[in-house]
Amino acid sequence: MDLAAAVLEGDRLALARCLTHVENGAPEGREALNRLFPNTGRAHLIGITGAPGTGKSSLVNQLARYYRQPGGLENSGRMRPLRIGIVAIDPTSPFTGGAILGDRVRMRDIAGDPGVFIRSMATRGSLGGLANATAGLVQVMDAAGFEVILIETVGAGQAEVDIARLAHTTLVVEAPGLGDDIQAIKAGILEIADILVINKFDQPGAEAAERALRSMLKLAHPMPHVFRHHGQQEIVPSGYPDREDKPLWMPPLQRSVATEGVGIVELANAIERHYQFLHDTGEWQQREQARLQAELDAILQETLVERWRSSVSEKRYDDVLASIVARDVSPWQAVKTLLDGDSG
Amino acid sequence: MDLAAAVLEGDRLALARCLTHVENGAPEGREALNRLFPNTGRAHLIGITGAPGTGKSSLVNQLARYYRQPGGLENSGRMRPLRIGIVAIDPTSPFTGGAILGDRVRMRDIAGDPGVFIRSMATRGSLGGLANATAGLVQVMDAAGFEVILIETVGAGQAEVDIARLAHTTLVVEAPGLGDDIQAIKAGILEIADILVINKFDQPGAEAAERALRSMLKLAHPMPHVFRHHGQQEIVPSGYPDREDKPLWMPPLQRSVATEGVGIVELANAIERHYQFLHDTGEWQQREQARLQAELDAILQETLVERWRSSVSEKRYDDVLASIVARDVSPWQAVKTLLDGDSG
Repeated sequence: MDLAAAVLEGDRLALARCLTHVENGAPEGREALNRLFPNTGRAHLIGITGAPGTGKSSLVNQLARYYRQPGGLENSGRMRPLRIGIVAIDPTSPFTGGAILGDRVRMRDIAGDPGVFIRSMATRGSLGGLANATAGLVQVMDAAGFEVILIETVGAGQAEVDIARLAHTTLVVEAPGLGDDIQAIKAGILEIADILVINKFDQPGAEAAERALRSMLKLAHPMPHVFRHHGQQEIVPSGYPDREDKPLWMPPLQRSVATEGVGIVELANAIERHYQFLHDTGEWQQREQARLQAELDAILQETLVERWRSSVSEKRYDDVLASIVARDVSPWQAVKTLLDGDSG
Repeated sequence: MDLAAAVLEGDRLALARCLTHVENGAPEGREALNRLFPNTGRAHLIGITGAPGTGKSSLVNQLARYYRQPGGLENSGRMRPLRIGIVAIDPTSPFTGGAILGDRVRMRDIAGDPGVFIRSMATRGSLGGLANATAGLVQVMDAAGFEVILIETVGAGQAEVDIARLAHTTLVVEAPGLGDDIQAIKAGILEIADILVINKFDQPGAEAAERALRSMLKLAHPMPHVFRHHGQQEIVPSGYPDREDKPLWMPPLQRSVATEGVGIVELANAIERHYQFLHDTGEWQQREQARLQAELDAILQETLVERWRSSVSEKRYDDVLASIVARDVSPWQAVKTLLDGDSG
């Protein structure tokens, strides 16, 4: 039986092998992705992001445990344990490519559950490459029948935004007492939040942090007629009835103490409400389309560069580079020379 | 007089206008860059990065003030005040593109000095785009005669690495008491450090942080025969005399309390030693070449995608995207279809 078929049959070993091929960009991985792709599009992709020290891993752990309980979710048609995939993007060296897996230790209590599959990925190479690889891992898990896929990223920058574009629902996790400077970053990250979690709510300063976040949220979602649309803000002109009638999603603020399991049910319910919102408004389909378009564009870019590279001799490239280093031509002029076959 | 000529003459208004054109990717900016490029390559580019809350902006401020003093640097041939350019990459919304300039307020005391030019840039668009835009700003300042250019970035991820690739000398700034989770990130960021600064050294836990960093540094630079080479580690085989004779740079740990001006002279001297090291070993030239190659590659990629985009009809692209959304073809198959003119 081939790899893709084994993944579809639920073979965990095949799944692990397939994920490795995809992460490494191996041909077997690409072939499996092509075979698996028709089976994707069913999972609810949930991104969890936030600064270091906010307790994201514990939160992911608790959510996974909650989804594994029988009895289902309030406000939800899902009355059986859900199968949970976890993709954790580890903070790691971009140079050595080695993952720091310390955080994963916290997930020990769910790691033995056959309904949970955890995959850590080292951040490596370009960010575009990372987003591509993550998209691939998520597709494999989706095709393998995992119904909720939790995508955890650490940091506070473009990486989170790129990964968030992969998700249907994005949780931004904050914690009290992480310093003033982090506030500045929050403003940016807040805009990608579908749900805002203040974790470690038992710590000093939690309520002050909540107040601050509430006012920042108002800044990020100031007007009734601004729509969040594939993560980008779009001003909807008044007198545009089709849009004005559409209900708005105002990101809720959820309190939690993940290490104690406090606030997890409420968070899962907020996620469920967002899931319903996405389906009721057609936003689910819009996010799907935006996500697949971003993936198409990334692969196009990668392929165009690869193909061009194999069409030009190393000597020609080196000569042009040398003329830049000698300050004879600017990089822009050099590109024109290389692409237009001009001798310079 | 045209813009590039005015920049070379030292016209600050022209400089500001030119930087704006470059940041916006306007044709005037590109034209100016082509004109200015032969005058670049003289400035010492110093990257300053680290997590939020470490006091990077104060440090940049103090370094700039120090370089502006007459009397020059110890161990340095530079006996007059240096002209200082500062490029600060602000943490900001990738969606709205608006910079949060609070940090810049701290630089008030150097902002009126005609030998200092400060430019804040919002992080926007793709990271590749950011690195490209930063490279352009730095080139304009370099051509305009700024002798030291301080490039400040906030965060702890790929962005810093990409920006660090722009610099000859990279300072990684740490501070005590930022939490365990940040430790994990340090391991990655440490590898790009030419100089490690522990700022806020008057705060509790400073010496413990220093000890922890010292052991992490040893991990990051474990062997005498591992060379840092354009920021990438390269194992040098024994019996490779050309390389084995080359002195190693072991990143020094510098203590500072930037808000009090403590440790600034020592830091400036460490920077000066690194500058000498780069020149003595030929590493300066190697980093220049790596930097310009990265820029060439980024521009190549951007141009290839732009040109392809203008060669394909919107309808054809939309049709292919629709077939992905319908799960008829995978994104990889779709790219093959689009590029090979295959009907699918």
